[in-house]
Amino acid sequence: MDNKIFPSIAIIGVGLLGASIAHAVRAYGGAGEVRLFDHNPDARAMAEKLVPGQMMASASEAVRGAEAVFLCVPVGALGKLTEEISSDLKPGAILTDVGSVKHSVTADMAASCPDTVHLIPGHPIAGTEKSGPASGFADLFAGAWHILTPLKTDTADYKKAIETLSLFWLTLGAKVELMSTERHDRVLAITSHLPHLIAYNIVATAYDMESVEEGEVVKYSAGGFRDFTRIAASDPIMWRDVFLNNKTAVLETLGRFSEDLAALQRAIRWSDGDMLVEEFKRARGIRKAIIEAGIDTDEPDFGRRSLKATNHD
Amino acid sequence: MDNKIFPSIAIIGVGLLGASIAHAVRAYGGAGEVRLFDHNPDARAMAEKLVPGQMMASASEAVRGAEAVFLCVPVGALGKLTEEISSDLKPGAILTDVGSVKHSVTADMAASCPDTVHLIPGHPIAGTEKSGPASGFADLFAGAWHILTPLKTDTADYKKAIETLSLFWLTLGAKVELMSTERHDRVLAITSHLPHLIAYNIVATAYDMESVEEGEVVKYSAGGFRDFTRIAASDPIMWRDVFLNNKTAVLETLGRFSEDLAALQRAIRWSDGDMLVEEFKRARGIRKAIIEAGIDTDEPDFGRRSLKATNHD
Repeated sequence: MDNKIFPSIAIIGVGLLGASIAHAVRAYGGAGEVRLFDHNPDARAMAEKLVPGQMMASASEAVRGAEAVFLCVPVGALGKLTEEISSDLKPGAILTDVGSVKHSVTADMAASCPDTVHLIPGHPIAGTEKSGPASGFADLFAGAWHILTPLKTDTADYKKAIETLSLFWLTLGAKVELMSTERHDRVLAITSHLPHLIAYNIVATAYDMESVEEGEVVKYSAGGFRDFTRIAASDPIMWRDVFLNNKTAVLETLGRFSEDLAALQRAIRWSDGDMLVEEFKRARGIRKAIIEAGIDTDEPDFGRRSLKATNHD
Repeated sequence: MDNKIFPSIAIIGVGLLGASIAHAVRAYGGAGEVRLFDHNPDARAMAEKLVPGQMMASASEAVRGAEAVFLCVPVGALGKLTEEISSDLKPGAILTDVGSVKHSVTADMAASCPDTVHLIPGHPIAGTEKSGPASGFADLFAGAWHILTPLKTDTADYKKAIETLSLFWLTLGAKVELMSTERHDRVLAITSHLPHLIAYNIVATAYDMESVEEGEVVKYSAGGFRDFTRIAASDPIMWRDVFLNNKTAVLETLGRFSEDLAALQRAIRWSDGDMLVEEFKRARGIRKAIIEAGIDTDEPDFGRRSLKATNHD
């Protein structure tokens, strides 16, 4: 099978995700020519050295002639970027993105996407806490879900475009799922946006305590805290845009979280041990489901081992 | 050097920590005879098969003649257990524990610890989300801090006992630090107790949302959520006891966390992007400090890779 689904693609924004698409295409196919652009000169310079593909002089130049265009920028920038490239998009091309929020940004992109172009927003449930061109790698999408949130358009051409784009992501190793933008944003609010917000918050709280406790927060962070710092190391601009563009679902989910936390707080204050045990046991059930679904390793401590030189080394 | 610091030790409670002490002693020395006991018959049967040492018929029998006694039970059980064994403790012996809370439980143990016995409470900053006799392993303490919170006793004998116990933990690969019980409980409230409470809470919130979102919370948990489920899989009874026995510091720290979270919530509601970016950037600083201190791996995603069979396999 010829796995060059698209003779030419453009990737605008060559951070963790954009760079990983380029690496994955080189490793697994899915496209012929890969054209790159990034508005940040430093990222551009780094990507020229590290990311397989042809660096172009502008976003418009990169998308010209491409059968599929991947916008890999923070979601707050998607509307403006679509406007910038709209007149250069090839009729019949697919325009997609990798943003963590779908509802509001689909409208942002649709506002200036030509009728002749198939807008199919997308979101890979894949990533690491790293960012920038150097952080990309070919296997980022392997085994991960890729959610597409197609418009309500019902034409045969549009359906065909969804199939083609799905095939591209399958080629890169992903599993594809279709979903409405509203549902995507509600589900991701709990599986991704709230956890990141909470992680950022606990790290900020600890940061302030660090001065109170004279450096001992970092020193004893292996007690559980360090896990939160990993996801809190994610790109700040990307996450600002996520929260500002999925406000309704995030605030709703946060409301539930705070209610539940207040109940735990009350149980601690009034020494309601039975309530605590009941809540803590429920948590094991969901961990078990995640392990059984093959979504995380069952190795103790994620398979990490001690890192410091020890007396035994 | 003869590394049998104690001719005979007793380990009461053969879960993750108790079993790991036994394995570590077999691997690295530090003690001659290892006597075990667990009040739970299932744990006892499993430990007889899996954990190196001599299983005794009772806690009292296990501690008889031992130069050091390690109480490895949930902190809520330490007072009662000390009472149970107090008349069988050998004069001059060291009595210690591995509990995650130190202030209240030191008083619980001191209440029935004979004057002839050196009570030196301790806490290894080591563990995994697993529990039970099968979860123990020899390298759990390697490179980890072991905090001792000695009483204010100032006798030469007591000082000597602290040195001997420190040497034991060094032999097992740990780094030893002395601290007051109050300070220990404040520092661990932020580095360990609050993170576990938050993880339990977000998993419980998600558990309720799971029914709302028809199974999609588990399915898309790789977005960040699954990390929280790991520490929320820890032993419920152990953690109930931690929260009930470190109430003051946990509630104080939780108060700070909730204040900070309310500020983030307000910033999202009012679209204060600058405030979000500022907070998120601070988090990177603390992650950097943890990596530089060698306390966590800098590998993306803790070095995990995709787990599901993919198209590439």
